Amino acid sequence: MIMNYPECHKQGCRFRVWAPEKETMGLRLLPGLKGSAHSAPGRDLAMNKDDWGYFSVDVPGVTAGARYGYVVDGNFYPDPCSSFQPEGVYGASEVVDHGAFEWTDTDWRGRPFAEQVFYEVHVGTFTPEGSFEAMIPRLEELAAIGITTIELMPVAQCPGRRNWGYDGAFLYAVQNGYGGPLGLKRLVDACHRQGIAVFLDVVYNHIGGEGNYLAQFGPYFSDKYGTPWGRAMNFDGEWSDGVRDLVIGNVLFWAEQYHLDGLRLDAIHEMYDRNAVRIWDELYAAVKHCEERLGRRFYLVAESDTNDPRTVRSPELGGKGFDAQWLDDFHHALYVLLHPEGWKNYQDFGAIGQLAKSYSEGFVHSGEYVWFRRRRHGASAAGIPGERFLVFNQNHDLPGNRPDGKRLSALVALPALKLAAAALLLAPYIPMLFMGEEYGEDAPFHFFSDYQEDQTIRGLEEGRSAQFGRFGFEGDARDPQDEQVFLDSKLCWEKRREGKHAELLALHKELLKLRREHPLLAGLARDRMRVDIVGENGLAIERWSVRRDLQLYCLFNFSMYSPMPMPGKQRRWDLLLASVPVKDCVPPQCFAVFEQREAALP
Amino acid sequence: MIMNYPECHKQGCRFRVWAPEKETMGLRLLPGLKGSAHSAPGRDLAMNKDDWGYFSVDVPGVTAGARYGYVVDGNFYPDPCSSFQPEGVYGASEVVDHGAFEWTDTDWRGRPFAEQVFYEVHVGTFTPEGSFEAMIPRLEELAAIGITTIELMPVAQCPGRRNWGYDGAFLYAVQNGYGGPLGLKRLVDACHRQGIAVFLDVVYNHIGGEGNYLAQFGPYFSDKYGTPWGRAMNFDGEWSDGVRDLVIGNVLFWAEQYHLDGLRLDAIHEMYDRNAVRIWDELYAAVKHCEERLGRRFYLVAESDTNDPRTVRSPELGGKGFDAQWLDDFHHALYVLLHPEGWKNYQDFGAIGQLAKSYSEGFVHSGEYVWFRRRRHGASAAGIPGERFLVFNQNHDLPGNRPDGKRLSALVALPALKLAAAALLLAPYIPMLFMGEEYGEDAPFHFFSDYQEDQTIRGLEEGRSAQFGRFGFEGDARDPQDEQVFLDSKLCWEKRREGKHAELLALHKELLKLRREHPLLAGLARDRMRVDIVGENGLAIERWSVRRDLQLYCLFNFSMYSPMPMPGKQRRWDLLLASVPVKDCVPPQCFAVFEQREAALP
Repeated sequence: MIMNYPECHKQGCRFRVWAPEKETMGLRLLPGLKGSAHSAPGRDLAMNKDDWGYFSVDVPGVTAGARYGYVVDGNFYPDPCSSFQPEGVYGASEVVDHGAFEWTDTDWRGRPFAEQVFYEVHVGTFTPEGSFEAMIPRLEELAAIGITTIELMPVAQCPGRRNWGYDGAFLYAVQNGYGGPLGLKRLVDACHRQGIAVFLDVVYNHIGGEGNYLAQFGPYFSDKYGTPWGRAMNFDGEWSDGVRDLVIGNVLFWAEQYHLDGLRLDAIHEMYDRNAVRIWDELYAAVKHCEERLGRRFYLVAESDTNDPRTVRSPELGGKGFDAQWLDDFHHALYVLLHPEGWKNYQDFGAIGQLAKSYSEGFVHSGEYVWFRRRRHGASAAGIPGERFLVFNQNHDLPGNRPDGKRLSALVALPALKLAAAALLLAPYIPMLFMGEEYGEDAPFHFFSDYQEDQTIRGLEEGRSAQFGRFGFEGDARDPQDEQVFLDSKLCWEKRREGKHAELLALHKELLKLRREHPLLAGLARDRMRVDIVGENGLAIERWSVRRDLQLYCLFNFSMYSPMPMPGKQRRWDLLLASVPVKDCVPPQCFAVFEQREAALP
Repeated sequence: MIMNYPECHKQGCRFRVWAPEKETMGLRLLPGLKGSAHSAPGRDLAMNKDDWGYFSVDVPGVTAGARYGYVVDGNFYPDPCSSFQPEGVYGASEVVDHGAFEWTDTDWRGRPFAEQVFYEVHVGTFTPEGSFEAMIPRLEELAAIGITTIELMPVAQCPGRRNWGYDGAFLYAVQNGYGGPLGLKRLVDACHRQGIAVFLDVVYNHIGGEGNYLAQFGPYFSDKYGTPWGRAMNFDGEWSDGVRDLVIGNVLFWAEQYHLDGLRLDAIHEMYDRNAVRIWDELYAAVKHCEERLGRRFYLVAESDTNDPRTVRSPELGGKGFDAQWLDDFHHALYVLLHPEGWKNYQDFGAIGQLAKSYSEGFVHSGEYVWFRRRRHGASAAGIPGERFLVFNQNHDLPGNRPDGKRLSALVALPALKLAAAALLLAPYIPMLFMGEEYGEDAPFHFFSDYQEDQTIRGLEEGRSAQFGRFGFEGDARDPQDEQVFLDSKLCWEKRREGKHAELLALHKELLKLRREHPLLAGLARDRMRVDIVGENGLAIERWSVRRDLQLYCLFNFSMYSPMPMPGKQRRWDLLLASVPVKDCVPPQCFAVFEQREAALP
């Protein structure tokens, strides 16, 4: 794997940049700043080009903190693989010495993936300060709830001071406003000390438009494929080897230089590649080698809207080799049962049998005609292990893509929130909470941005209203560019100690404890699990031990009005947990978990 | 499978057309022609629309020969799934009663795929008449040479009177100038009587521009993907189910209504589909069902430029499930050894080791950096059975895409042609000859067309010169629109009886007889085969029986000047076949086949 970013060593720094179709390339070190002692103003250093299109130069005396950029065709641009953009996307790059950080997590190995409980965080709105540093004091409490993994929304350098993260123009640079590379390393180190793993959301389907100078360096973009968010990356055309190196190198970069535990790859269905060796094949092999070097696993989780089991199948079987993928269908099936008007946004969902199917098979749409898509959609995921799917009641997209920015807690009442929590945390998949969900945060989570260019701002408006229309949302949205919209989306962390918030928080702890400790829940096995539809709108999930001496019934009543009868011989069961006191039936919008212990089969 | 084309029955005819986004559709029967008795001029018949977007109407009294079309948004268009366009792409469609043809091939089953010898034919230039009918008298001679399969270049209705076939605008209509549906059926029936299978080249990556009214009916074209020849078909977007039905229905149409034995799918790497159930999965399943109905195999052969072994791997392993694919690398590796200036057109080829690799593994480029593509290309095909690859010394593209239209026989001398024939016909793959190659036809095979619209004609010129430049061809090409260019491309069938042509024809017969009858050649097995580079530019292919009592050496000397020493203990060998008398060495540009029989291993 070629190192794309400046590499500090004892005598100085080695710079490298890929521009296969350029004849010359200059390195410009900016004067007057620390680490830049050797640069003479106005004098660019010539770089040498190798056969693969990489220009490089070794500059003695340059140390971390030096500001630099490259001169292409007479123009100065920041480094496309910059590790730090202290002045944002338009400014010069800064040399980072990744070897200098003193990690304290050398023994960190993490726990098995099947035991993980994810917690999605947007750094800018998780704390009042909106920084990596400010997250650290909250880690202990997250760990105490039962969170095992924090998944950061993208931190690649974006334009402006606030952004969801999907407009990153520098894949290797950590957002300056969050605390840059040092801030992220300190956070990861602190997480590992708390026993918490850290995943990062990364975007390889397109590159944010503002401050994106990649096309000035090389053929990074495809002329064959487009995405809803801009030009697709060139993974299979001429010169695509270097583009693949950028992406695969970036995956390894987060593993090696930031000690991350895994990545979530955004919308992989918009990554196009028809080559015999797909980027997925190369990525899979590169990660396996990396894991051997590091002596620990490094996980890749996909967001994909194709409902294709090949996403999580191994490349040997024609799959993409992801460790897991987000299971949107589970959310849609559940949400439409919880919210009376949910069907308006998800017209292809609404039947209790769909949630039952999602519990037992994963994908709800496995070849059926889907109205939203005007075509048959998906293939069956039956038989795929439960740990290959991440499930959630909400994520950043679900409130953020509504005009009102409402979270689930602002849409349904406390009983439904409790039911939702149980349906999620007792599912045979890896659960993920969206920050604040554990205490029913009812602040909105809006889409917000701080674009700097008129064209992007205009495109934003059009894109948003098309999106709302497509999902059947009505009503006006606030202006994403307004800082107040961002400020209103911040968590109110103190709420967790009060009233219904505290009650919901306690329930999450109990549910996670049960999930962790109960022998029939911990393993995610679905081979000894049966899902039945009971009563008007109830689900009964039965699990049993191999020797049949232990049985567990998770009962969810999604009916708004009718009680759910308890199936079978419930009188001899022990109640383990319920949202309200339960006797002969499960009340509407409630859940209950029962256990039965018997003599083992001979 | 939905039937897209008019279906004749006892009482009349059922018309069906797909237009999912249209509210209404009219069927217009043209007056005054046979079979159209019931149509009243100026009165369109209303059609009923079903849930899947198909309009249909059953019209009593309409029989084969009726002319019709559909009225969409007030305009009259021919049927996109017309079986016959008697007046070409711009005229009305004609009802064909496919059930009326009296087939005589009911017992036809064909022979195993591994035993096939393909012969590619362009109907318009194969005979002076340029018709299906005129081909029939030549079949006996083709069978006598050892040809087992005729592969027709596309016959889908194209604009004008002469065309290679890749501009077809009506996937289901057989070119009127060749003799239409009846002509093709008669040819296939005659072939089967001669023991010859018939394959057809079909194009699903784009639709010819002239006379193409598909977009007027429905969302047939993708707004996401482009091809070098026009808009890609919509296999994964909204409404794509109907587009897939068009294509899959077309594959089955050729199998069922024309008794074809297989199809060659043009440039499948330009067919884009990111769905969970790819068109390949659906097509594979549909063909398997069709084979069960027909009681015989129906083969699909792909043209693909990706060098991806998944093309011929089963869908269960993530493959596309093709029975075979064209092996271009074999041609390139061989051609550059035969022609002193061949390297100018194939800069990534030229080493004898590449041909050796192609014999043993199939793809020459299996992950290497390829200059022509400016990237790494391909994956290894080692271990893929030999019958999964079709090999050739030339095909329609190779002369046709040169400015001078020269076939191999006009580029190299007789010894090289003999060597080429042996290298091809003794290869462990399915061989394919291009019509006339068997007797060294030296007429050119130009690209020719008869476009009717200025825009297409202008595009043609630009496309051609870009293509020449890309492959490093120099010199002016003749005007493809000039009828003489077409006429000059016709075979001179009589040549086969004279001089070097007769000599070459005899050699082809001998080689095919050897291939058919020799126990170490017939099976295409490569598990008991070794390829060695010998001398300056020689290849020795050794094959042996399981018990080691029979050995076969195929020796090819590609050197222009040096004799090739014979490896090992050649003195005890028997010469089976050679291009010139051979004793102690193989002269330059010659081949020889030796056999050795010994006592079997105990």
